[in-house]
Amino acid sequence: MSSMLTSEKLGAARSPNTEPKHDATRLHHLIESQQLTLPLLMELFNRSRGMERVVARGGTLDYQNRILATLFYRPSTRTRFCFEAAMQRLGGRVLSTEHAGAFSSEVEAEQIEDSIRIIGSYADVIVVRHPEAGGAKRAAQVSPVPVINAGDGEGGQHPTQALLDLYTIYRERPLVGLSVAIVGELDKGRTARSLAYLLAKFDRVKIFFVSPHELQMKSDILDYLDAHGVRYELEADIERVIREVDVVYQTRIRPERVRDRKELQRYAINSGVLAKMKSDALILHPLPRTVELDKTVDDDPRALYFKQAANGLYVRMALLTMLLERDQE
Amino acid sequence: MSSMLTSEKLGAARSPNTEPKHDATRLHHLIESQQLTLPLLMELFNRSRGMERVVARGGTLDYQNRILATLFYRPSTRTRFCFEAAMQRLGGRVLSTEHAGAFSSEVEAEQIEDSIRIIGSYADVIVVRHPEAGGAKRAAQVSPVPVINAGDGEGGQHPTQALLDLYTIYRERPLVGLSVAIVGELDKGRTARSLAYLLAKFDRVKIFFVSPHELQMKSDILDYLDAHGVRYELEADIERVIREVDVVYQTRIRPERVRDRKELQRYAINSGVLAKMKSDALILHPLPRTVELDKTVDDDPRALYFKQAANGLYVRMALLTMLLERDQE
Amino acid sequence: MSSMLTSEKLGAARSPNTEPKHDATRLHHLIESQQLTLPLLMELFNRSRGMERVVARGGTLDYQNRILATLFYRPSTRTRFCFEAAMQRLGGRVLSTEHAGAFSSEVEAEQIEDSIRIIGSYADVIVVRHPEAGGAKRAAQVSPVPVINAGDGEGGQHPTQALLDLYTIYRERPLVGLSVAIVGELDKGRTARSLAYLLAKFDRVKIFFVSPHELQMKSDILDYLDAHGVRYELEADIERVIREVDVVYQTRIRPERVRDRKELQRYAINSGVLAKMKSDALILHPLPRTVELDKTVDDDPRALYFKQAANGLYVRMALLTMLLERDQE
Repeated sequence: MSSMLTSEKLGAARSPNTEPKHDATRLHHLIESQQLTLPLLMELFNRSRGMERVVARGGTLDYQNRILATLFYRPSTRTRFCFEAAMQRLGGRVLSTEHAGAFSSEVEAEQIEDSIRIIGSYADVIVVRHPEAGGAKRAAQVSPVPVINAGDGEGGQHPTQALLDLYTIYRERPLVGLSVAIVGELDKGRTARSLAYLLAKFDRVKIFFVSPHELQMKSDILDYLDAHGVRYELEADIERVIREVDVVYQTRIRPERVRDRKELQRYAINSGVLAKMKSDALILHPLPRTVELDKTVDDDPRALYFKQAANGLYVRMALLTMLLERDQE
Repeated sequence: MSSMLTSEKLGAARSPNTEPKHDATRLHHLIESQQLTLPLLMELFNRSRGMERVVARGGTLDYQNRILATLFYRPSTRTRFCFEAAMQRLGGRVLSTEHAGAFSSEVEAEQIEDSIRIIGSYADVIVVRHPEAGGAKRAAQVSPVPVINAGDGEGGQHPTQALLDLYTIYRERPLVGLSVAIVGELDKGRTARSLAYLLAKFDRVKIFFVSPHELQMKSDILDYLDAHGVRYELEADIERVIREVDVVYQTRIRPERVRDRKELQRYAINSGVLAKMKSDALILHPLPRTVELDKTVDDDPRALYFKQAANGLYVRMALLTMLLERDQE
Repeated sequence: MSSMLTSEKLGAARSPNTEPKHDATRLHHLIESQQLTLPLLMELFNRSRGMERVVARGGTLDYQNRILATLFYRPSTRTRFCFEAAMQRLGGRVLSTEHAGAFSSEVEAEQIEDSIRIIGSYADVIVVRHPEAGGAKRAAQVSPVPVINAGDGEGGQHPTQALLDLYTIYRERPLVGLSVAIVGELDKGRTARSLAYLLAKFDRVKIFFVSPHELQMKSDILDYLDAHGVRYELEADIERVIREVDVVYQTRIRPERVRDRKELQRYAINSGVLAKMKSDALILHPLPRTVELDKTVDDDPRALYFKQAANGLYVRMALLTMLLERDQE
């Protein structure tokens, strides 16, 4: 696969002017995935390819005087490490909070505007995980430096996760015409939500939302897909779609949220489901997992979730370079 | 304003021999603000000006082999980030604790001497926040490397906060002859206490301590001011002094500590108070705030508290260079 | 003492083939101290001497593009700082968790395999402290990068602690023929366990395990010593051995684990015990201490425990260079 990504490869580009709220060619903050236009995605993915080469060489770039701050009001060792490693592989430096919210109750989270204004005078870019949907946007509105949303609330977004998800698919096959099953407790699935917004940018994509009825994807996403002419179906059993999809995007199902524990099988990937999948299908999962993804799947060549996690490094390195360059102009 | 600071600008220097316990020309540790003589303040502020230029250039200094450890038994994301950013902007490295005391109950805090002796063999300078007044001094007594007090106990000190407070004023106007209102729950205000010690070094300063009677500044500070011939008054209503002061140093008032909630208005800055202030007055606050500083004040040109927080970076960079140089001699 | 270490100095080498499970000449992970053969120990101690010189010069090595991750499911500020300082003194970078287990209950610890596979794609080496014995081994089995066990469970191991313990003795005297008292609550003493394994590699060593009967060293260690022909005795009073030993390796005794508090005196070092020790004996303690090591001992020239803690820096620097070089081959 060539390292250059063009509009053609990504499918006939939807007009960027369908995202009126965001600048199509510049990225100041990354708060929600729908703000990423196709040109920005193209640039990001091209840079991500370059970052794969930088890391493989064991090199770094010229960011030794730039500082990234991670401000996590909820802990996530893996996401935080990925951002911090990305900055360090660029040659940069890190200020880190493991769990800012643990110690100051919600006072600090409530005062995120003051915190961001202050931290923005120490750091060059801030990664925020906030307990409430909209928290990252509030941060961006006052920040003197770029803000990246690393997850805001159960019903919010996690756009860099969606970027690395999409990048993982893009590295394997064309995105146009893709058939994707998004499986799990989708009402609170911010990674599923963010991915749906991104998939909507590509022509002839079809999405199957597979979830117990009471945990299905919320109407705001479905309305967005309708408005953008994206085909989707709601399903309640993975078996009904598993033979036809190109990608299974599996997400967490907490057993306590499903009324009948036996029903969990309808939303889980195990050897029986594997047998019915296309031989070249891709299995993704944002991790961590509970019962919905059996460890026996790990050895299947279609299982890409550890590669997916590794891709987070390249995508976040690429994103940081875009934000920090913009910031300097 | 010239970048050089001289004794004259700071006012007629008080004799350094009024601080018999500390070395007037060398700084080994920074535990309490009264140990800073005028020559040391002069050097620190001159270096801070230089650090502003280093940061503006996006450069670093030559500290890549030096390590700062933050040992915080109580969390403070903002203060910790400021110290860590200061070390990193110098080119140095950081070992970090978000909340050392959270996990080992008070055992580790009790054994701070052992911890400091060990950490002092890994790091070149240690920043301590300790739950008890005197904790930082205990640390300094055994440390093989410089110790900086980043707050010890509610009734202790926080000298680097006072330094950045004073630097913020110094950057705007002469310190000699200054009229300052220090407002808030002053009995437990370690930033207010540390600032009072520093202000006492300058001629013809006048301080108004504005606080509910039961939360007024403690007698140890008042005795110190008396002994050093500094004029001060105790007030219980900000309105009584607001028209004449050059600086309002506002600090936190927790509503639950005031008997009558309506009385809180006497110690708060809002648009009514703003209207009565001098047109060139300065409003400072160490942040975080509760109810005593309305967000509507943020847009007033006299509001300097975010600039004040940003100045913390320069002052702490300057302080670190002074301590690490001394350490090498 | 020469900076070169040879087999002869270490005593007649036991045959490496007594450790059939581990590679005698290569180190991929460090999980348990018995995997260290004499040639590996020799290499490690020689490198550690070199690291003393690197640190004394204030220099760093060429690891600026390598990242160490500390994944601590239980907090230990001192051990974590030592590893992180070691990586930074090599010029490398750090990803850090103060207490990964605090926030995600045991879920993350249970899923350590997934976490390690992901973190192993961000970092070049991972240091794990895990709540259960065997946790580090589970991590190593799936890790794409070297794993170091920084303590796993109360009955597990802490091999780098044993390495720095042994290095501290080695820097002072020959290891062959050494007489060592290991004192404390040994049933749960993972540092005591790890040290016993290492001492077993040297000829004519004699070990006295000094502990209340109910807290004595477990049979797995005693069986290992029997199998390797190492002399040992079980004692219940430090007074009975104090006159003859070359080294007292004192470890923690939690008073609540001893039935009769007065009996604690039998396992404590104080001025009375000091008076009976050999004039050139060495007193070691992995710290932190409770009541078993009086502060009055600190000034005795035989007290080496702060030097011991400082040696951790050199030994861990040396270990990291060995693991990261192997990793690159």
